[in-house]
Amino acid sequence: MSLSDQVLAGDRRALARLITQLENDAPSAREALAALWPHTGRAHVVGVTGAPGTGKSTLVNEIAKCLRAASPPARTVGIIAVDPTSPFSGGAILGDRIRMRDLAGDSGVFIRSMATRGSLGGLARATSDAVQALDAGGFDAILIETVGAGQSEVEIARTAHTVIVVVAPGMGDEVQAIKAGILEIADIFVVNKSDQAGAEATVRALRAMLELGGRKQTAGSEAVWETPICQTTASEGKGIGDVVEAMDRHHAHLRASGELRMRERERVVNELQILLRDTLLARLMDGLGNGQFEAAVDRVMARESDPRSEVEGLVRAAREEGG
Amino acid sequence: MSLSDQVLAGDRRALARLITQLENDAPSAREALAALWPHTGRAHVVGVTGAPGTGKSTLVNEIAKCLRAASPPARTVGIIAVDPTSPFSGGAILGDRIRMRDLAGDSGVFIRSMATRGSLGGLARATSDAVQALDAGGFDAILIETVGAGQSEVEIARTAHTVIVVVAPGMGDEVQAIKAGILEIADIFVVNKSDQAGAEATVRALRAMLELGGRKQTAGSEAVWETPICQTTASEGKGIGDVVEAMDRHHAHLRASGELRMRERERVVNELQILLRDTLLARLMDGLGNGQFEAAVDRVMARESDPRSEVEGLVRAAREEGG
Repeated sequence: MSLSDQVLAGDRRALARLITQLENDAPSAREALAALWPHTGRAHVVGVTGAPGTGKSTLVNEIAKCLRAASPPARTVGIIAVDPTSPFSGGAILGDRIRMRDLAGDSGVFIRSMATRGSLGGLARATSDAVQALDAGGFDAILIETVGAGQSEVEIARTAHTVIVVVAPGMGDEVQAIKAGILEIADIFVVNKSDQAGAEATVRALRAMLELGGRKQTAGSEAVWETPICQTTASEGKGIGDVVEAMDRHHAHLRASGELRMRERERVVNELQILLRDTLLARLMDGLGNGQFEAAVDRVMARESDPRSEVEGLVRAAREEGG
Repeated sequence: MSLSDQVLAGDRRALARLITQLENDAPSAREALAALWPHTGRAHVVGVTGAPGTGKSTLVNEIAKCLRAASPPARTVGIIAVDPTSPFSGGAILGDRIRMRDLAGDSGVFIRSMATRGSLGGLARATSDAVQALDAGGFDAILIETVGAGQSEVEIARTAHTVIVVVAPGMGDEVQAIKAGILEIADIFVVNKSDQAGAEATVRALRAMLELGGRKQTAGSEAVWETPICQTTASEGKGIGDVVEAMDRHHAHLRASGELRMRERERVVNELQILLRDTLLARLMDGLGNGQFEAAVDRVMARESDPRSEVEGLVRAAREEGG
């Protein structure tokens, strides 16, 4: 039985193995993912982002519990905990794993931690691959948890259908960061730790901002999405139902407005372009003669020529070698 | 007189225009940058990163002033203020610009703000382009200031020779974030706001971490770099001399150990690969027949085939069209 068939049959260990192999960019894993593609497109992919200390992990935990408990029917949940602040370690996020221990015994929940790979865009790639694998594995909801950190939010917004931005009361920098551009990617705001002082002020600040630019209308559609603000105290399990309700409402909105299709299309275009780029570069490098690339690097280093001219030379050389 | 000649002649407005055109990916600007390449490789490129609220901007400001005042000889300074937390606005960072106003009258200082472009890796590209332009423009030191944010730190580490990580006392999350992987990219630590409570504890925590892994030895060299910890109160201009001294010492170390050459080589390899990838993708798209790419996207969307198979088909199709 192939790895992709095992994943389709619901084998969790095969799924974990596939994701590890994808992280290591194993060719057999890429083939397995290609075979799984026709079985994707069912899951609701939700990104959860926010600064450190806002209680994201606890919130994700509670959302997962709520989705499991909802009846009828209980939904299966995949969780991908992404740590872009750990660029070199490549290891798992111990704290998150400990916090999520109470979910780990449930076979309807699959938890995976990921840290940034060295390469540019490596984490986005790995996350997108893992989402596809979980989607094919039959999970109803996939929660991607990531530290709010600029570039990674852009990437999460590319991969997720629904983006939840978590803030905590009284974080001055937080509201600043939100002003700086988070508004465009947030589909739902959650003010967590709502039992703390300043929660109402944070909600008011968010509401004022949203009045300026929180309505999103899909091109060619009447449907308008008004970004909701939910208040939670995740550590006590309070307010989680509202968040899940908002998630479901947003998913329905995306479907009804045609935006789900638009987002999926963008994702596929992006995916094809990245794959094309990597494939073309790999073929060019294979097609070059021994040491040709290194010689080009040497000439650029010595300032005898510039990167642009060398790139044109390399493309020409590869074409001539190739036939 | 061409734009590149104007930049070489020290024309600041031409330099600003070139950077804007590079941000917009104008073909003429790419040609100008290629013409400037032989004149690059002189500047000391220093990345300054840290969480919001650590006082990075003030520190960068003071380092610039110190470099300007040093005698003999005063050094010219280019400052690139990068804001990866502003993924969509594309505007300048007003706060930083106001704070840096006292430098703006000095013709030996050039200040430029950059926000994240939508595209993956777009900011890294724009920053690297701007560094090359400033380098060719004859600036002795180039300071890249960026919010500490995972992926963007990896990118800054790729572009800069020396990376300064700024922390402020009593930021619990800060020390956590450092543990997560910042150690590998920091060449110098600065504990700013050292007049505040907890500064000594922060220094001690950093020192304990560095004892575990703060010595960096260059392969094939005897030279060892022991990551220093500087204490500053940038708002009062205190301790800045130590930071500049550490910067200079690190630059000398990179030269003596041969690591400067290694880092430059890595940068050139990376640059050539990115350029190759973009060039190859653009040529393939040009070579495809009308609507071929869109048809591939449609088939993937409909789950009739998978991205990998379509990419292989597109590469084949482009080759056949091409001859």
